[in-house]
Amino acid sequence: MSENQVIDLRSDTITRPDEEMRKAMAGAEVGDDVYREDPTVLELEEKVAEILGKEAALYFPSGTMANQTAILVHTEPGQEVILGKKSHIFYYEAGGAARLSGLQTRTLDDESGCPDPDDVEKAIRGEDIHYPPTGLICLENTHNRAGGRVVKPEIIEKISSIASEKDLPLHLDGARFFNAVQALECSPADLAGYFDSVMCCLSKGLGAPVGSMLAGEEEFIEKAIAKRKLLGGGMRQVGVLAAAGLKALENVDRLAEDHRLASELAEKIDRIDWPELEVDEVNTNFVILKYEGEAGAEALRSRMENIGLLANAIGPSRIRLVTHLDVDEQAIEDFAAGLKQLAGTIS
Amino acid sequence: MSENQVIDLRSDTITRPDEEMRKAMAGAEVGDDVYREDPTVLELEEKVAEILGKEAALYFPSGTMANQTAILVHTEPGQEVILGKKSHIFYYEAGGAARLSGLQTRTLDDESGCPDPDDVEKAIRGEDIHYPPTGLICLENTHNRAGGRVVKPEIIEKISSIASEKDLPLHLDGARFFNAVQALECSPADLAGYFDSVMCCLSKGLGAPVGSMLAGEEEFIEKAIAKRKLLGGGMRQVGVLAAAGLKALENVDRLAEDHRLASELAEKIDRIDWPELEVDEVNTNFVILKYEGEAGAEALRSRMENIGLLANAIGPSRIRLVTHLDVDEQAIEDFAAGLKQLAGTIS
Amino acid sequence: MSENQVIDLRSDTITRPDEEMRKAMAGAEVGDDVYREDPTVLELEEKVAEILGKEAALYFPSGTMANQTAILVHTEPGQEVILGKKSHIFYYEAGGAARLSGLQTRTLDDESGCPDPDDVEKAIRGEDIHYPPTGLICLENTHNRAGGRVVKPEIIEKISSIASEKDLPLHLDGARFFNAVQALECSPADLAGYFDSVMCCLSKGLGAPVGSMLAGEEEFIEKAIAKRKLLGGGMRQVGVLAAAGLKALENVDRLAEDHRLASELAEKIDRIDWPELEVDEVNTNFVILKYEGEAGAEALRSRMENIGLLANAIGPSRIRLVTHLDVDEQAIEDFAAGLKQLAGTIS
Amino acid sequence: MSENQVIDLRSDTITRPDEEMRKAMAGAEVGDDVYREDPTVLELEEKVAEILGKEAALYFPSGTMANQTAILVHTEPGQEVILGKKSHIFYYEAGGAARLSGLQTRTLDDESGCPDPDDVEKAIRGEDIHYPPTGLICLENTHNRAGGRVVKPEIIEKISSIASEKDLPLHLDGARFFNAVQALECSPADLAGYFDSVMCCLSKGLGAPVGSMLAGEEEFIEKAIAKRKLLGGGMRQVGVLAAAGLKALENVDRLAEDHRLASELAEKIDRIDWPELEVDEVNTNFVILKYEGEAGAEALRSRMENIGLLANAIGPSRIRLVTHLDVDEQAIEDFAAGLKQLAGTIS
Repeated sequence: MSENQVIDLRSDTITRPDEEMRKAMAGAEVGDDVYREDPTVLELEEKVAEILGKEAALYFPSGTMANQTAILVHTEPGQEVILGKKSHIFYYEAGGAARLSGLQTRTLDDESGCPDPDDVEKAIRGEDIHYPPTGLICLENTHNRAGGRVVKPEIIEKISSIASEKDLPLHLDGARFFNAVQALECSPADLAGYFDSVMCCLSKGLGAPVGSMLAGEEEFIEKAIAKRKLLGGGMRQVGVLAAAGLKALENVDRLAEDHRLASELAEKIDRIDWPELEVDEVNTNFVILKYEGEAGAEALRSRMENIGLLANAIGPSRIRLVTHLDVDEQAIEDFAAGLKQLAGTIS
Repeated sequence: MSENQVIDLRSDTITRPDEEMRKAMAGAEVGDDVYREDPTVLELEEKVAEILGKEAALYFPSGTMANQTAILVHTEPGQEVILGKKSHIFYYEAGGAARLSGLQTRTLDDESGCPDPDDVEKAIRGEDIHYPPTGLICLENTHNRAGGRVVKPEIIEKISSIASEKDLPLHLDGARFFNAVQALECSPADLAGYFDSVMCCLSKGLGAPVGSMLAGEEEFIEKAIAKRKLLGGGMRQVGVLAAAGLKALENVDRLAEDHRLASELAEKIDRIDWPELEVDEVNTNFVILKYEGEAGAEALRSRMENIGLLANAIGPSRIRLVTHLDVDEQAIEDFAAGLKQLAGTIS
Repeated sequence: MSENQVIDLRSDTITRPDEEMRKAMAGAEVGDDVYREDPTVLELEEKVAEILGKEAALYFPSGTMANQTAILVHTEPGQEVILGKKSHIFYYEAGGAARLSGLQTRTLDDESGCPDPDDVEKAIRGEDIHYPPTGLICLENTHNRAGGRVVKPEIIEKISSIASEKDLPLHLDGARFFNAVQALECSPADLAGYFDSVMCCLSKGLGAPVGSMLAGEEEFIEKAIAKRKLLGGGMRQVGVLAAAGLKALENVDRLAEDHRLASELAEKIDRIDWPELEVDEVNTNFVILKYEGEAGAEALRSRMENIGLLANAIGPSRIRLVTHLDVDEQAIEDFAAGLKQLAGTIS
Repeated sequence: MSENQVIDLRSDTITRPDEEMRKAMAGAEVGDDVYREDPTVLELEEKVAEILGKEAALYFPSGTMANQTAILVHTEPGQEVILGKKSHIFYYEAGGAARLSGLQTRTLDDESGCPDPDDVEKAIRGEDIHYPPTGLICLENTHNRAGGRVVKPEIIEKISSIASEKDLPLHLDGARFFNAVQALECSPADLAGYFDSVMCCLSKGLGAPVGSMLAGEEEFIEKAIAKRKLLGGGMRQVGVLAAAGLKALENVDRLAEDHRLASELAEKIDRIDWPELEVDEVNTNFVILKYEGEAGAEALRSRMENIGLLANAIGPSRIRLVTHLDVDEQAIEDFAAGLKQLAGTIS
């Protein structure tokens, strides 16, 4: 690895649009999307709805806004939302479910990427004036804080049945929906079919600079348009971004490459002789390192940064590496090699 | 037990004011408390503040309103409150922390009556725009849903130190504060001293028909008056109730009797030959029965009701009995005897 | 007027329960109202529902909580509530409609006691994602800040028709509902009939120390019970207060006496030779003085207080006098005489 | 005017990015702005802060989100915000101040474009537990619903003094901030100097497809970053849009041309012989037609649309025309000519 080279595996959010995508953006036909007159946005929305097998879809400036909008539409304040205790919505969305929608968060263990269906069933509240009524169940696939883990259709199906039986809406935070589809080797519509609403990002592994989609029934999306406006997500000639989103959809298949490189990276790191460093099982494009050294994950991360290896510490003893569009075989080799240099130099 | 007799151990909330208390209410000197001109209310507030060793106290129509007011004063919306997953505030207050204060609830295991101090420390969030900042820690003593369990000063002290260090307020839901004091054989001020604010009820074991107090620093109580008004807790000549509260304070010592009767009841039930029925350890005035029969707790409860034994089912296999002002030795004997009759008659 | 005598006309909220009412309270049969087992509360609720011609009614610790509960039940956050710009809900309830229910307040001129029906109609929003949808219309009768003014059925009927046509709920803040009924010489059910929900107070002119009622359809009241619990208004053996409420209902007819005394007081003051002091037209039990002196209303109020005449300044040049249960003919004469003494002594 | 030509004067929001702007977007250097690593965004923010004479600025996907973020940062829920009754924040932002920030809206007459400073002063609440405390004052310049009217520095200065004296923050909704600067012939920093925070749009007359800025003190902007994240406004490689924003800033001076064309259009329409049609005084790029015909504004708008003249009806008798980047002298002439054809053809 050359001295000044930096390999950035902090997140797949950092990818930059390539020439072709930029060209698409520059040439996009646009209109005022607040008036619903931007043809490129409408094309993207229609396309995503079709891919996900939903009646309609809507463009958002972020996955967080798409998730929070879904929550606003599905619930009434004073209800309870059941979700994983490591889920992005609970962990990383600034408390939006409580702050914006007035919901109590009923968190369940989701170390494995998904709450246990039995736990979900038990957490649903019966009627009692002491209780916040259950209003929504949220899952995440792939699951970010569980290490990019894929949730299997079998478990989703069980939770989906429980939700149906109790007449509760089921939302999917699919920030990395297409990584899940790739890993499960299923169709997008198959996975989306279990849910009343699905959020999926066009940024991250797919490479769009900005943009997330929310899909569901026509009536749901109508309401989502109003809530998006409330949150300040009504944009004007945003076809310039939607054009990038259309391009990003062409990258779905190449997520397999990210997954392959993540596995390769994990193997290489696993072979390093470094007793304090363990590698988790890899499901998709995340590699989670468990570092048991005294110095702690943040110290190791900082040492890695010094030699150009960028990663995120996601806990006192865990470091996250994410493969993406802007890293290749060579970068993976260099990253592993760089890490090997550090072995034993930090306690 | 005579045929039509009913022994009501559903809760200590059901106690009725006795003659002396009613007389005090009828004779109370009153004024308009919204103008802070009710002398009986002011006397009660001063007295409770003194007993708890706090600068000031405030009268509320319910413990829920006192808790929710404390939360409103201590926090800003969009923060996170750390509390037990079986705590009354999380479990039984209609989602108020989220609905009224916009807080995300970060729940920790509190099977034992109190979250582990290490868990509390780990749950406190560092600064990051993805996070809801931690704004408050709440404990409960005695702990209702953990079976009336008493939380020991040693564990409270640890959590109090953590809170101080992180500059976080610490609130006590002391719906049964005086039961805790009684069981711990400490002074009210000693227990209250660990907390920035303390809620304690004058109803329940103390026997007032209505009324809970919130105590804390002068400035805190000033703000609480405004939030109480917002929630609709500003009342007029409420000295008629405060007079009952003053009488209720004379009942503090007799909580020992409730605890003694609860222990006795537990022992008697334990001696019944009924393999599916187990009795939890008794700390205060709660007796928790674990019923492993197929029929489930609700079925047993209903059978008990048929023969005049009132109790609450608090889960699929748990039944709660609570001793209080309106039950005596004889009632306890009769209750145990009645239960014995049922042994083996339900699977 | 004797030297140390104080005549308190600040508000009709300051009345103290008489012996008979206290006796009723002391003797009340009670139960746990959170379990809906307090017979006195249930009796009061049934009686009020009957008087108002509504399916059901519910007891509250304050009129503010009853109003805010009605608003919570009728609306969804992000809607707009149409109400008078001097209405109690807008002016004196700590911003609860916005804070608790998330509603934008669309205020209309109500100097006369009620917004103009044309203004109400124009203020109703059509559908547009830029708009908060209109969710509720609130009126007030008698109107506190408009000087205890009575709103005539003719105008209410027009607004009620508009609300029906647009399928919008109509709520009445009837803190002084029975004063309105008295002044209009109509039946309570006639006045209540225009509204989906009615709040009326048992304190104020009727003399209960605490207590307000909310009446409406069965389903509405069911939901109100849950919202009342959320706000902390679930109380236990509150029959001790409800008993006072039942007594207070016997005072409905004697409100005529309050109105008569207010008119008398106004006449007497009008006859005082004091160019800077004018008296508004009296509708019910409020007398509004307009004081054009340089010193301002607050200075005059303070001077009045010095000689035992208590009143509220309700603006830079307005003073409010309220007759009630605890003032009689003599007090009125003394009050006017006292005021006469001050004529010309303050600029 | 050729038969199929459409002249769109509905709003200046409909402008499409030109070739040069698209090129800038396609070539923009980008990074992950959630990590604050997008150089183009940072450049734009620095530049806008400098132009407005503020310590810092922040990029937003919409003016609504920038306004609502400012409100979230400046206030606490349960306070009152003073603003014009025709202001965009009150009228067109889906009730966000109440829904997102829990604020009661205290609206003042702003027919002229700005509330009267005396009214502002009187509307500020003193301390009383019945009141929502005043938390913020918002102005708008130019004022959309008042017809693009410019608010003069003299009146702003008075309100700014009142705000300072009462220690209240003052926010400017400057969706068309640069139109105001242009019309007032002042510097941006002069106008911005009266306010604690200023929102200005890069879309609308300046021609960026998407993008609004919020400027204020460093500490304010730090908090705004967190609130923007909460609302879902944290975007990734958004430098592609910021590049358009930088280009848009080059269009500031040409707003004079929009104003000139609006005046010309108004004059031409004024000369049409059509008694029911009046033209308001033109301040900037808005032309407001008052149509007194029986058919009403919506009917006229629809007739105009039929012959390719697009406009917005903004009330039962008012139609709004807005000049912008994509209309020229010829379009203005054609529009007036088209309108002339309609004279007398609709009652």
